[in-house]
Amino acid sequence: MKLDKVSIHKKYLCGVGVGPGDPKLLTLAAVETIKSADLVLAPTSAQDEPGRAEEIVRKAIGTIPVRRILFDMAKGESGIELRKSTALVAAKEIVTLLQPGERAAFLTIGDPNVFSTFNLLARSVASIDPTVEISSIPGIMAFQDLVSRSGMTLLDEEESLRLLVGLQVDDKIEEALKDSSSAVVIYKGGRNLPAIVELAKRAGRLADGWIGVKIGLEESEVTSLQNIGTGPVGYLSTIIFPPRRL
Amino acid sequence: MKLDKVSIHKKYLCGVGVGPGDPKLLTLAAVETIKSADLVLAPTSAQDEPGRAEEIVRKAIGTIPVRRILFDMAKGESGIELRKSTALVAAKEIVTLLQPGERAAFLTIGDPNVFSTFNLLARSVASIDPTVEISSIPGIMAFQDLVSRSGMTLLDEEESLRLLVGLQVDDKIEEALKDSSSAVVIYKGGRNLPAIVELAKRAGRLADGWIGVKIGLEESEVTSLQNIGTGPVGYLSTIIFPPRRL
Repeated sequence: MKLDKVSIHKKYLCGVGVGPGDPKLLTLAAVETIKSADLVLAPTSAQDEPGRAEEIVRKAIGTIPVRRILFDMAKGESGIELRKSTALVAAKEIVTLLQPGERAAFLTIGDPNVFSTFNLLARSVASIDPTVEISSIPGIMAFQDLVSRSGMTLLDEEESLRLLVGLQVDDKIEEALKDSSSAVVIYKGGRNLPAIVELAKRAGRLADGWIGVKIGLEESEVTSLQNIGTGPVGYLSTIIFPPRRL
Repeated sequence: MKLDKVSIHKKYLCGVGVGPGDPKLLTLAAVETIKSADLVLAPTSAQDEPGRAEEIVRKAIGTIPVRRILFDMAKGESGIELRKSTALVAAKEIVTLLQPGERAAFLTIGDPNVFSTFNLLARSVASIDPTVEISSIPGIMAFQDLVSRSGMTLLDEEESLRLLVGLQVDDKIEEALKDSSSAVVIYKGGRNLPAIVELAKRAGRLADGWIGVKIGLEESEVTSLQNIGTGPVGYLSTIIFPPRRL
């Protein structure tokens, strides 16, 4: 959302990535866009409580008026349908509230184009009013923060990366761990931690693994995978294995 | 590098990711760390010219004194050996120049732990003086910027991501493109563009592909892969395919 290019005839919606939790990991572009927006929106899972993205922004730039959108984070098909209908209701509201020449900023943790409700909302807005100009500002992702805090080198020379979702532990995770030249990042795998630990052990990669639990929250924990115990942990976790190196 | 935790007895080295090129994509943490550092270092490929990381910082916060480190970016084994010896010389200099209680910031484009010379430098510093406290600040990566500028959703629901280096076009790229639930990001594949386009065509993914050439430079170009022509382009390019969606 380039501020110098705003037309008085158009409406604007920008997805703003606010990073994984540390308010200092906001970009200059994010701060500028939020401060200058006519309408700031943020997802939450309880209407009377700020969502995580809103909390991060509060810490970074203070309290600002935020229109909260209640997103149901239920998994599976029913969860997707619920989110779609929520996004459609929110999209109608945005299109109605915004006047020509005005700009809305939608806050999301991490990056707005990676596992975020922003894209869903943007598609809903486009389906209602295709003239709304949609853009996004990338944000630091949780796995980058975990890599930094663990002190590891994630990728070097010609190594590669696989990023997967661990809601189900299937062949994909096993196959990824077998590819020793590849770093493996697993999002949302906390509840399946025991199964993931077992696969990592078999692939000889357990000792190199790191886990970040509740990254971005006060009670966040970053630790070697071997130190975390063998029970399941919270849903909101990030597991990382660097490539196997000699 | 938490400023409130600096000990007067220790030396500090922080790898600072400055993002892919747009100075507004620096984080607040990066700006703060650079401004307060006692010594700012940046890689360059010609001693009398600023490197890209230094240029980005200049645009963001103005000209600051930067100690340039000449890194040879030659590929292959000889390139690695050259970079290792450069890093060792630079590391010796850093350890000598820094006084206890002082902090050095090493600027890198993108993220300091992803295909960056920072990790190499950090290992060299640790080998000379293991008491130096080493940390890093994550930065926005080129592919995130390209995703944002293309307007695509990179990952949704349970999709996955594969990030590969395209210096050689081998089975790995072909296999990744065959995995339709996976987004595929290829770094440094510009010189092999014709072969990558051919593989994408075979996998039925050419129409969804995007390419960013020289992202972060004034002459950067972001375009659909079908519009780029079939010849090779610059080394510094990013190619992205979102997952195949129905």
